[in-house]
Amino acid sequence: MCTMPLYMDVHRDVDASVEEVVEAHKKDLETQEKHGVKYLNYWVDDDEGAVFCLFEGPSKEAGEKVHKEAHGLAADEIFEVEQGE
Amino acid sequence: MCTMPLYMDVHRDVDASVEEVVEAHKKDLETQEKHGVKYLNYWVDDDEGAVFCLFEGPSKEAGEKVHKEAHGLAADEIFEVEQGE
Repeated sequence: MCTMPLYMDVHRDVDASVEEVVEAHKKDLETQEKHGVKYLNYWVDDDEGAVFCLFEGPSKEAGEKVHKEAHGLAADEIFEVEQGE
Repeated sequence: MCTMPLYMDVHRDVDASVEEVVEAHKKDLETQEKHGVKYLNYWVDDDEGAVFCLFEGPSKEAGEKVHKEAHGLAADEIFEVEQGE
């Protein structure tokens, strides 16, 4: 296989509405290409202020750069993951 | 819309190999139906001992019951989420 690493990032205590997270994600999509990143999906718990972003990319740092450049909402943690099934 | 709630659970400091997580997930799939739960996907960070499980179900507790009954590896946190896109 020759696939890019897969990452799940976790944002906690996010002080943004679901609408703002949706907008932030759109900015990620506009910014990702230059860093070789592809955001695949994300999940939001509005009550808890938690956001999970699943992305492919060359490194954790590439994902950090996209978030920083797109909207500044940095993840608290980024995990390199294997997807089940 | 008439869809079941969606949840992301997070397991931290998991003391199990990827193979054991794969086996645990199979047991979830065998156990889920009686609790009205459907595991959709999962992601494993073997180095960090982190596992994320995405599931539909009637409640967080239903997901807890499946894990408890299937293999006993309880999640540390369960978030009710909306999926992006």
